[in-house]
Amino acid sequence: MLEYLTDADDPRLSDYTRLRDVELRKSIEAERGLFLAEGEKVIRRAIGAGFPIRSVLTTRRWLASLEDVLGDATVYVVSDEIMSGIAGFQVHRGALASMERLPLPAVDTLLKGATRLLVLEDLVDHSNVGAIFRSAAALGVDGVVLSPRCADPLYRRAVKVSMGAVFSIPYARMDDWFEGLARLRDAGFQTLALTPDQTVTPLDRVPPADRVALLLGAEGDGLSSHWLAEADLAVCIPMSAAAMATGVDSLNVVAAAAIACHGLMRTAAG
Amino acid sequence: MLEYLTDADDPRLSDYTRLRDVELRKSIEAERGLFLAEGEKVIRRAIGAGFPIRSVLTTRRWLASLEDVLGDATVYVVSDEIMSGIAGFQVHRGALASMERLPLPAVDTLLKGATRLLVLEDLVDHSNVGAIFRSAAALGVDGVVLSPRCADPLYRRAVKVSMGAVFSIPYARMDDWFEGLARLRDAGFQTLALTPDQTVTPLDRVPPADRVALLLGAEGDGLSSHWLAEADLAVCIPMSAAAMATGVDSLNVVAAAAIACHGLMRTAAG
Repeated sequence: MLEYLTDADDPRLSDYTRLRDVELRKSIEAERGLFLAEGEKVIRRAIGAGFPIRSVLTTRRWLASLEDVLGDATVYVVSDEIMSGIAGFQVHRGALASMERLPLPAVDTLLKGATRLLVLEDLVDHSNVGAIFRSAAALGVDGVVLSPRCADPLYRRAVKVSMGAVFSIPYARMDDWFEGLARLRDAGFQTLALTPDQTVTPLDRVPPADRVALLLGAEGDGLSSHWLAEADLAVCIPMSAAAMATGVDSLNVVAAAAIACHGLMRTAAG
Repeated sequence: MLEYLTDADDPRLSDYTRLRDVELRKSIEAERGLFLAEGEKVIRRAIGAGFPIRSVLTTRRWLASLEDVLGDATVYVVSDEIMSGIAGFQVHRGALASMERLPLPAVDTLLKGATRLLVLEDLVDHSNVGAIFRSAAALGVDGVVLSPRCADPLYRRAVKVSMGAVFSIPYARMDDWFEGLARLRDAGFQTLALTPDQTVTPLDRVPPADRVALLLGAEGDGLSSHWLAEADLAVCIPMSAAAMATGVDSLNVVAAAAIACHGLMRTAAG
């Protein structure tokens, strides 16, 4: 159903309010149980993954690109000016969709079906979470577990950076950070703590295991000492000696995650 | 030399004008031969790498954090309001430095001293270029060659994301895209073209070589067909079958670069 709206303050557009205000968006999305998908490709993937559409916001120019998948969804069509006014930025390929969230699986349910897990502790940056999901999905990780304080993979920026990988890889959220790793061990996962510390086992030398969970810590601080101590094995990505000498002594978490996921897949194959 | 400025339009602040206007900044920085370093750590690394300071812009609060390395540089001290007004964003740890660019080495000079090269073709995103330099430096790449249209590693955002790695890893810019790879081959480099195409040689199976240059293509489009055809060998990072089926069929260029640099280092060690 198409509705042509000419007022940026129309209450029907309230799902799309103040997209650059992270704190406000977090509370709107939690209260209403929604998330936003941006751009044709990501919207298609969200629909394909089974998330119900609340509404779509687009312009005349971009409407045709999505028509075949929208069914009887409510589609608000606005001018370019209203679109960029609402968003506060250039909307990727001129379309936003407000989608209903679905219940997340329980951690135990997720663990039953997985053999290669990523566990993210307190990553706060939505772009990083999205980029890590994209790498994880491409490289064959089959589940992600989030610490209680880890950023939301369905936040718009995370969804966008992930290219929709947050829809294709199952994830669950721990309700207990302190006991979280014990649950993983109980389910038969070897827990590997990734650290910049160059004195621990290099990732390439980790013996193969049937079920592996790789723990990644927050930007800057890395893994908590509690999780480092609880993990079965601390592992590192070897750095060049020259880099260590000049102080460029760490990878960002997205780069480290990509190398680690690639390593996990080789472990699984071997 | 400290100067306390109270006018955001003071002409002495013109190096710092309109930091969010990428096109304007490109022309200012090219004309004046400057670049901007942001935050204490990055400014220290720029100074340590030998770039002359034109001036530093900071606030009273952050001045002390840099005093020991500023020597007799001109330091403009402004209020928090002027600082954020000039920048248009929250300046990382309240300090910006305008530094003089140094001449880049010629490609041939760079090639003489290197054995593990990255070659970036037309990457346009400054954050991606910065992140790739950071991974390259940490993982032992000893030189980067940029295609003529590749984004500037000394643009503020690239410098920041690289954490200063753009100062520690030598790089050069090709003046001829079409003949660029021939120069690499003449210098004895095996050229590897990274592609998402899963039918080519997996990165892990590349035979060791004394001198290797890994070619990375632009976000989205990947390597040009000319470079793909010119390269000695096309290589891929193996993707999971499940990912290929759901359409999450590629890594972003930063993730791919990290995995590839890690692979190159192992090739060198082996």
